[in-house]
Amino acid sequence: MYVLKFGGSSVANAENIRKVAAIVQSSDAKQVVVVVSALGGMTNELLTLGTKAAEGDENYKGHLDDLRERHLNVVKSLLPITGQSSSLSLVMQLFNELEDIAESIFRLREFSPATKDRILAFGETLSSKIIAAYFASLNLSHRWLDAKNVILTNSKFSNAKVHLEPTMEIISKTIQNFNEKIILVPGFIASNKKGQTTTLGRGGSDYTAALFAAALNATRLEIWTDVSGMMTADPRWVSGARIIQHITFKEAMELSHFGAKVIYPPTIIPAMNAGIPILIKNTFDPEAPGTLIDNEPTTHELEQEIVTGISSMTEIALLSIEGSGMVGVPGTSKTLFETLAAAQINVILITQSSSEHSICVAVDAADIELAKEALDSSFNNEITTGKIEPIKIERGLSIVALVGDKMKSHPGISGKMFSVLGRNGINVRAIAQGSSEKNISAVIAFEDVKKAINVLHEAFFEKVYK
Amino acid sequence: MYVLKFGGSSVANAENIRKVAAIVQSSDAKQVVVVVSALGGMTNELLTLGTKAAEGDENYKGHLDDLRERHLNVVKSLLPITGQSSSLSLVMQLFNELEDIAESIFRLREFSPATKDRILAFGETLSSKIIAAYFASLNLSHRWLDAKNVILTNSKFSNAKVHLEPTMEIISKTIQNFNEKIILVPGFIASNKKGQTTTLGRGGSDYTAALFAAALNATRLEIWTDVSGMMTADPRWVSGARIIQHITFKEAMELSHFGAKVIYPPTIIPAMNAGIPILIKNTFDPEAPGTLIDNEPTTHELEQEIVTGISSMTEIALLSIEGSGMVGVPGTSKTLFETLAAAQINVILITQSSSEHSICVAVDAADIELAKEALDSSFNNEITTGKIEPIKIERGLSIVALVGDKMKSHPGISGKMFSVLGRNGINVRAIAQGSSEKNISAVIAFEDVKKAINVLHEAFFEKVYK
Amino acid sequence: MYVLKFGGSSVANAENIRKVAAIVQSSDAKQVVVVVSALGGMTNELLTLGTKAAEGDENYKGHLDDLRERHLNVVKSLLPITGQSSSLSLVMQLFNELEDIAESIFRLREFSPATKDRILAFGETLSSKIIAAYFASLNLSHRWLDAKNVILTNSKFSNAKVHLEPTMEIISKTIQNFNEKIILVPGFIASNKKGQTTTLGRGGSDYTAALFAAALNATRLEIWTDVSGMMTADPRWVSGARIIQHITFKEAMELSHFGAKVIYPPTIIPAMNAGIPILIKNTFDPEAPGTLIDNEPTTHELEQEIVTGISSMTEIALLSIEGSGMVGVPGTSKTLFETLAAAQINVILITQSSSEHSICVAVDAADIELAKEALDSSFNNEITTGKIEPIKIERGLSIVALVGDKMKSHPGISGKMFSVLGRNGINVRAIAQGSSEKNISAVIAFEDVKKAINVLHEAFFEKVYK
Amino acid sequence: MYVLKFGGSSVANAENIRKVAAIVQSSDAKQVVVVVSALGGMTNELLTLGTKAAEGDENYKGHLDDLRERHLNVVKSLLPITGQSSSLSLVMQLFNELEDIAESIFRLREFSPATKDRILAFGETLSSKIIAAYFASLNLSHRWLDAKNVILTNSKFSNAKVHLEPTMEIISKTIQNFNEKIILVPGFIASNKKGQTTTLGRGGSDYTAALFAAALNATRLEIWTDVSGMMTADPRWVSGARIIQHITFKEAMELSHFGAKVIYPPTIIPAMNAGIPILIKNTFDPEAPGTLIDNEPTTHELEQEIVTGISSMTEIALLSIEGSGMVGVPGTSKTLFETLAAAQINVILITQSSSEHSICVAVDAADIELAKEALDSSFNNEITTGKIEPIKIERGLSIVALVGDKMKSHPGISGKMFSVLGRNGINVRAIAQGSSEKNISAVIAFEDVKKAINVLHEAFFEKVYK
Repeated sequence: MYVLKFGGSSVANAENIRKVAAIVQSSDAKQVVVVVSALGGMTNELLTLGTKAAEGDENYKGHLDDLRERHLNVVKSLLPITGQSSSLSLVMQLFNELEDIAESIFRLREFSPATKDRILAFGETLSSKIIAAYFASLNLSHRWLDAKNVILTNSKFSNAKVHLEPTMEIISKTIQNFNEKIILVPGFIASNKKGQTTTLGRGGSDYTAALFAAALNATRLEIWTDVSGMMTADPRWVSGARIIQHITFKEAMELSHFGAKVIYPPTIIPAMNAGIPILIKNTFDPEAPGTLIDNEPTTHELEQEIVTGISSMTEIALLSIEGSGMVGVPGTSKTLFETLAAAQINVILITQSSSEHSICVAVDAADIELAKEALDSSFNNEITTGKIEPIKIERGLSIVALVGDKMKSHPGISGKMFSVLGRNGINVRAIAQGSSEKNISAVIAFEDVKKAINVLHEAFFEKVYK
Repeated sequence: MYVLKFGGSSVANAENIRKVAAIVQSSDAKQVVVVVSALGGMTNELLTLGTKAAEGDENYKGHLDDLRERHLNVVKSLLPITGQSSSLSLVMQLFNELEDIAESIFRLREFSPATKDRILAFGETLSSKIIAAYFASLNLSHRWLDAKNVILTNSKFSNAKVHLEPTMEIISKTIQNFNEKIILVPGFIASNKKGQTTTLGRGGSDYTAALFAAALNATRLEIWTDVSGMMTADPRWVSGARIIQHITFKEAMELSHFGAKVIYPPTIIPAMNAGIPILIKNTFDPEAPGTLIDNEPTTHELEQEIVTGISSMTEIALLSIEGSGMVGVPGTSKTLFETLAAAQINVILITQSSSEHSICVAVDAADIELAKEALDSSFNNEITTGKIEPIKIERGLSIVALVGDKMKSHPGISGKMFSVLGRNGINVRAIAQGSSEKNISAVIAFEDVKKAINVLHEAFFEKVYK
Repeated sequence: MYVLKFGGSSVANAENIRKVAAIVQSSDAKQVVVVVSALGGMTNELLTLGTKAAEGDENYKGHLDDLRERHLNVVKSLLPITGQSSSLSLVMQLFNELEDIAESIFRLREFSPATKDRILAFGETLSSKIIAAYFASLNLSHRWLDAKNVILTNSKFSNAKVHLEPTMEIISKTIQNFNEKIILVPGFIASNKKGQTTTLGRGGSDYTAALFAAALNATRLEIWTDVSGMMTADPRWVSGARIIQHITFKEAMELSHFGAKVIYPPTIIPAMNAGIPILIKNTFDPEAPGTLIDNEPTTHELEQEIVTGISSMTEIALLSIEGSGMVGVPGTSKTLFETLAAAQINVILITQSSSEHSICVAVDAADIELAKEALDSSFNNEITTGKIEPIKIERGLSIVALVGDKMKSHPGISGKMFSVLGRNGINVRAIAQGSSEKNISAVIAFEDVKKAINVLHEAFFEKVYK
Repeated sequence: MYVLKFGGSSVANAENIRKVAAIVQSSDAKQVVVVVSALGGMTNELLTLGTKAAEGDENYKGHLDDLRERHLNVVKSLLPITGQSSSLSLVMQLFNELEDIAESIFRLREFSPATKDRILAFGETLSSKIIAAYFASLNLSHRWLDAKNVILTNSKFSNAKVHLEPTMEIISKTIQNFNEKIILVPGFIASNKKGQTTTLGRGGSDYTAALFAAALNATRLEIWTDVSGMMTADPRWVSGARIIQHITFKEAMELSHFGAKVIYPPTIIPAMNAGIPILIKNTFDPEAPGTLIDNEPTTHELEQEIVTGISSMTEIALLSIEGSGMVGVPGTSKTLFETLAAAQINVILITQSSSEHSICVAVDAADIELAKEALDSSFNNEITTGKIEPIKIERGLSIVALVGDKMKSHPGISGKMFSVLGRNGINVRAIAQGSSEKNISAVIAFEDVKKAINVLHEAFFEKVYK
């Protein structure tokens, strides 16, 4: 049993869907679960549609017409004329439902979370139904399975939490009775105990696939996307970036902040916990080996390689709290992180060196104003009495990080990393490396990031040839 | 106006007290405030005395006799026989008082914080009174000032907080009326608004001196101790460690974790805030230039030097929290630091690299069990549901840190630091450098600490000759 | 300037609306504000409509048809045939809007608070528009004023709080520019700052009227309803109950728990605070004097009368906490009332006699299970350790209360009250009388309530004749 | 087995102690436990002694001499001259110990709770030791038992909580091995697990006696005091007050607020829980029948009597919260009682009548200022916005209450009570009667209290003769 998941770009149009069918057909597994996203871009389009309607913007109707047209066109190019009518009528029927909902939103001027999930679910339902019709036209043995009937969640619409045990059990029992070779499942969608539609949040289709993989104890989980795998560095910055052929789960998680964001770490946890290997593959280059993620120690292309990849985050700001009043007083970091948590601000990097005089945290550049405001208020007292200095913020920063499980056993990596950066005149504003030693992060100026990634890539991935 | 503070070792016996008198006499200031600690070791002896009595241990009496004997001997060796009687009787009288208190503690089996401060205060009262008698015997123009009358605190016995404004004003007005050349003040002691004796906590005599320096806008504050100043590295580890002749306040604070612990940072804040230069001097080598601490940019002995000193803490433990459930969830660090603050555990170093998968904190090795217990309880839920992995602790670690204001403008320092460590096979377990860039800290194994400090010292302080 | 408010029964059908017009025409004020409720029963009907739709019950459509029919019929009977068409078309148009909203609720299966208020508002809009058309057909000088434009609230839909200052000012400025004799205002409806429709909660139309009365400093506020005023006792129990011709605001508030519930106390606060007399009148017996509520000391019909009225609540339960562990321990009542407040349970009567051994509270019989459950949980610890006994509850109880400002200065009232009850064999389960002495409440068995009210009424209101 | 407890007045001097011995000797039980208080007034004297010393008042010494003298005199008058010496020396020795402690307090100026308990314990130790010597001189078979060895408490000095289970077991096992007829136990004293002396708080000796009674399953507990039992009313107010010969535990608790305060309710709980009858007896009139407290229905002297007693509290103040903003808002009582609990104010009576407009609580007159201040602050917001009126307080009030288990089944009691009060022109400011119907409380003016109690006593206890 394999589980194959195809992302939005992989099913964006008729041509791509044909590739998907070819890939599925050529799979060597006896039975495959195929999880599909909505047609590329549809989730955002549906969100915009609902938002427009709720704002009283009549243009939502034209928008709806475009989306309908798009799906009808896919059906028309995908199916033989003789086989189109039932699919066309199914699409029309789903869009009529969608239109009714949109009109209701427009009238009530309300776009509640529950309705949001109902609307978004049309994306995956449409794509999966169309693909099922195409599979039928190819005489492939298949069965469409409604994810809402097998994935049970709480009622936190938009980002529902799955009730793991019953979901696993239902998936396993349901599939057991199916003899078809292909089980086709819309990703992202689930339902709560009242039967209302819910969705699984960011990376939801990957999560659906990982749930199936874990429930069925699949031989592997294949994530088919539009790149050929995880890369040694962000290819937008480094022309010589290479595909990483093999990586451990933990390394993959560390590399997830990558520009390319091939996977969103929380979504693969069910597969990881079940020890099921994940293969990242490219729908548009199915021959490429892709990236294999599992628990085996990473085997690098070149034996000498120790670092697995270079991660980077470009829009970062730093925030530092400093003051003689912090020494020996345990409460400062508590207040700092309490404040940031209350303001729902994610902390990307923390560093407090041994003098206890200052703590420095990196946050998303978009959050820095909010963070400063919240902290100014929390520390108002300490600042006015001079115990700590006014909160400092620095913008225009980026983070580059070396990632690799093997770094732990090779003492010189940090030396090499900072020597390379220093030698190239790149000033390091903050450094953090935790005891797991799988990640050394350096905060640098945004204008240095391209140079930094390139020289590090050269040092750790290219120099080795010489 | 200078303020001179002499620590416990500087007034440990008659011989040393003679040196103190010589130093005071040779001062080129018109008027000097001389703040003295108790005779070396007395504070601990008094604490032991009280604790013994409270435990019902009759030996407290013999202990008291020894302490009395020690002070009488100092008087006898210091003063001419003809001038001893009034001092001997003063010492006897103070010890009778102390004996009454100790007996009361013994009877009630209670050693309350208030009584603790009353007992400890005998140390500085005795030393300063004896020194005053000695100054009298030398015909030095001097006056003994009871610190309890001028330093006002809250009632947090053992570690009382000074009410700064009234204290400053009283000191200034009091001294203004004094014409004597030398004002002799017992350090460490103060009083609350009910007139009860309080003490100023760790480094209390330095703090007394800094308060006087700030209140009187002294030209400088001299801290006379038993070393010739702050050093480039802990001399117990590095034979080639040199005295730092000039250092900024902020650097001095960063270097305070030093083994030698020449100063405890919070105690110098009044002087720092008032911009009063501090001179660390050696009572036993008064000719040595010592270390000057002020706000001027550091001038290094050798122009090439960028790093000011190497700090080290040897008994460290690391604690790490790791887990896929932490990604994108703002609350983990809040809970972590809330828990540590509630358990009154000081966090020496924090580091969370960019993957958000793990946070790592260094704490004093003595606190690690308590910390783990508290965190296991706080995160019990997350651990049992697998959102985070069991808390990991690592013992037997140390921190070495480069300190220096100039590091900020010299890109290659971190590279050099980690290259040197790497080249010498020293594995770096965690790294933290904040955006102030005055401190780069590396956590290493305790068994590597000697080697690490030496190779870093060689690289940053000795190699430059070549 | 008078403000006249007509309740739902007063405008329930064409016949009644004719009476309303006659009353308005005969008013001796120069200008009147007429506030009208929805046609009798409409608010509940609209609520049912929305709830049905949200539950997916298609019958909502038939229901809607009935409501439309009802309004069309009122128009047809009220207006001359030649003048009907524009009103019929207005009603049709409003019902089309309502139908769209109901359909949207049906489709989305959501009946949000905001939509609830939008739907409810149709009731008053329809009634006031129809009445306006009728006034027009009578050639009465009038103007319809949209309450949504002058009453501003927060966004707490269903029970919105009015922003008093701006609302008062807008009402005052708006009406100032109107020359028409009659200003016709739909009650109950308001809007928030986004312009969304809100409603004012229980007794909302009375509140609208009181707001207008206060804003315009009206000479009086007339509440036209279907009874001839507040009565000395609930007429369902006491055949001899009489109308109270004059009562103070405070007495009126005390009597509000009455079965008849002529007014809901919070709604008259704006009028009371502005000192505007309120006249309760009967639309169906306009000649009856009604009840005048103002700040003047009550003048009773018979000089000898001291009690103003007898209030009664029939469905009551008692809950008592008792235990030796409560004596001298201040926390019990705190926990008790904290728990009840958290469970949103209203406390009708409290009594703790001087022994501190037991506290007894009366709550609505419908809340007693919830209350007991909550308290059993809060006091679980004290109950299991025997500090307090298990919470006792008693059902089947009622409260009768004497109300009257003059009782304060007449010592014998409580004696007379309890003698009468005792003499008639009515056991009193709990008694409460606060220091304002405007109310003496007795908890008795439900089966005694009829007898109790009758004997009390006889003793305080009838005996005087003899 | 009987347990006999003799209070401070019963052992105030030699003469009284002789009466005690006679009473003990004449007991018809095989074995008796005799619990004694300190000599009348000693507990307060010892407290004063310690307080004086802690304040640095040297007069504590003269005070100590007086107390020593008093005890020596008791010994001298009680014992034959030949038998005095060992007792005199014991008293001297205990006073030397006490003197040492007092001197320590004087020196340290600290009177900690632990030391307070140590000092207080001398009172019961001295009295019980002297009585033991007297029993010896009478050749009575007796044994002195140190309460500290058998009563185990937590460390809440001054008001320590007893660890019931181990204490019961130790008492039972210890006494089991004793063959003496009389076991003499100092009341009030216990110890914590470190062996430090603790005391049991208000009514502590009664509590000691009740613990022994329960642990030994005594046939009865006799409380010997200076009155002949609980009375139908406070004899200071009512000349005709009579002793109550029989009363239930619950009634006794209700009557405990009595001026005479014969027992403090919490102290008898162990006996009550074990169902052991308590007999209140008069040391100075041992023939008088006294008051029997048990679980049997009260048998009144005169069959017609229904009320058991009249309780009264004279120094009361009322506090009322009133406001239209309280109606239907569950939080007011929560805030009220939360505030009073936080301010540690005991609530004596609560009453909220059915209008929900006002809550009225009675507190000790001494607490009223504090209560008002706390409530003004808690309700500041509601008061300034007019939701509730400013908190009203009324001073100069008293409470009279009828107490009796039988009142429940006799409907006319409240009528009779309030008729009597009304007929006598006594205005009732507040009334509370809970559903247990064991207590009807009326708040009246202090100047009416004497009249009120007398007319009530006449009505319920004397009229019956006629």
